[in-house]
Amino acid sequence: MDPTLLPDRAAVADAAARIAGDVRATPLMKLPGASLGLPPGVELWLKLEQLQRGGSFKARGMFNRLRANAVPPAGVVIASGGNAGIAAATAAQALGVRCEVFVPELTSEAKRAALRARDARLVVGGAAYAEALAASLARQRETGALLLHAYDQPEVVAGAGTLAAEVEAQAGLPGRVLVSVGGGGLLGGLLAQWGGRCAIEALEPVGSPTLHAALAAGEPVDVAVGGLAADALGARRIGAIAWGLVQRHGVASHLVPEAAIAAAQRALWQELRLAVEPAAALPLAALQAGLVRPAAGERVLLVVCGANVDPATVAG
Amino acid sequence: MDPTLLPDRAAVADAAARIAGDVRATPLMKLPGASLGLPPGVELWLKLEQLQRGGSFKARGMFNRLRANAVPPAGVVIASGGNAGIAAATAAQALGVRCEVFVPELTSEAKRAALRARDARLVVGGAAYAEALAASLARQRETGALLLHAYDQPEVVAGAGTLAAEVEAQAGLPGRVLVSVGGGGLLGGLLAQWGGRCAIEALEPVGSPTLHAALAAGEPVDVAVGGLAADALGARRIGAIAWGLVQRHGVASHLVPEAAIAAAQRALWQELRLAVEPAAALPLAALQAGLVRPAAGERVLLVVCGANVDPATVAG
Repeated sequence: MDPTLLPDRAAVADAAARIAGDVRATPLMKLPGASLGLPPGVELWLKLEQLQRGGSFKARGMFNRLRANAVPPAGVVIASGGNAGIAAATAAQALGVRCEVFVPELTSEAKRAALRARDARLVVGGAAYAEALAASLARQRETGALLLHAYDQPEVVAGAGTLAAEVEAQAGLPGRVLVSVGGGGLLGGLLAQWGGRCAIEALEPVGSPTLHAALAAGEPVDVAVGGLAADALGARRIGAIAWGLVQRHGVASHLVPEAAIAAAQRALWQELRLAVEPAAALPLAALQAGLVRPAAGERVLLVVCGANVDPATVAG
Repeated sequence: MDPTLLPDRAAVADAAARIAGDVRATPLMKLPGASLGLPPGVELWLKLEQLQRGGSFKARGMFNRLRANAVPPAGVVIASGGNAGIAAATAAQALGVRCEVFVPELTSEAKRAALRARDARLVVGGAAYAEALAASLARQRETGALLLHAYDQPEVVAGAGTLAAEVEAQAGLPGRVLVSVGGGGLLGGLLAQWGGRCAIEALEPVGSPTLHAALAAGEPVDVAVGGLAADALGARRIGAIAWGLVQRHGVASHLVPEAAIAAAQRALWQELRLAVEPAAALPLAALQAGLVRPAAGERVLLVVCGANVDPATVAG
């Protein structure tokens, strides 16, 4: 990807101004580490982004993509059975434009209902995500709709970066940032705002290691995806924008075992009454499993990125 | 009750200083009314107190009661199968004192497990709450333990009032305050801090109308309790302290139908990803059912008071 096209702080500031009336400023909650079984000197900052419109950070990027472009009469089209699809439908409904969502066959009835409730036209586009994506691209060529990508468009990444700008306005710079990675849209946004200014650690489930595989291969490569958090972090390869920003700014990267993710999801319910999806539990899982060991006095930001989950599953 | 003993703003300030290191400052989230199907000009303030230690506001009062008194070697004793018992056990565990909790037979295994996990000694004290209370009082006389009351002690009410002082520090005075009432501990705390300064509206489930019954009779009287929110709001009569503060400051009072409570609980999950107990949904229920109709531009505080709930039940 052309490095001059990578989003930076200026792009994030533009996005923040563009979507200020559309998205929620989500709370930042500070807690002593001891609240979650961590060393007492550590100060945890929880960005409660699961309270965002549509239940995840994805609304930031989708509103920015729609606000930054003229939307044709055919509306917008996206391939996603998950958070990005719900965010796209939320933004399209709010702005009064048509929205087609191509989903794979495996998309649950609950997610289909959530999309329909937001007035999206649902199209089952094949057995797996890749087929739904191909079908959405063909449809876009046919109708001329504005294409939305779940994580690999500059406006989508810059929109995700507004989460970081919002944290900075709420409490200043954290010392260390823990963020889950699938396609890398959120990671890219945080790097656009904070690259070179604070330590960012990327967390991936062992079952869906897109960034690890790219770092090993020296370029984005396809991985097999599976496991507990595959629903939200199941992209098959890291996005070109996120990869460009990783190369520019650098990140530490950790693979988080499935059992640690499940334990952290339970702890977030038991200790904090946060009902979140597995993908949102990776930051705490990395701390509780000792993959990341902050120093006493360090301010560690955990991005609680989404809660599109059946609440019956969070109490374990 | 002797009116000179009723908690006031000074008592709340004392409590806040006493428990600052013990409790969490919970987030205040501002939302446009339209987010929850209300008129667009209304500004909602959600105090996310379900994120408090022990999952409800009760921790504030229990820490204050323990911090304000010398705790004898026998520790503390309380009768409660619900949020107050969990808060008492949380505070006792944190301060390293013994805690006996008398529960009625109907207390669920999940709540018993939550109490045991906080090192409380559990005693089944009879078929219903009144018998557990009588057993706890007998035990207190026997051991000399510090008695904790779920809602009718000055330190407990003043502790609850720190929630109001915290909101005021976060965002200033709300225009109108919506709060659920059972025994009246939280209502009393809000009145101690805000009585005469902003409009406070008390909400009760039709199945447990302690305040309504007291207003009708001119004094606290026993009511039959039942319904969806009885678990947290099932006190049999309003506390003497809350009643004294109601007489001093005045409140509006509304009975909320069961169906509206259930619908608001579902909406808090569907629209905001807040998994809360029925008692915490009464403020939104009163708005959505049209029992309370704020004017455009009004800042309305909804106290989301607790989340000690089986998360499987919130999605309805």
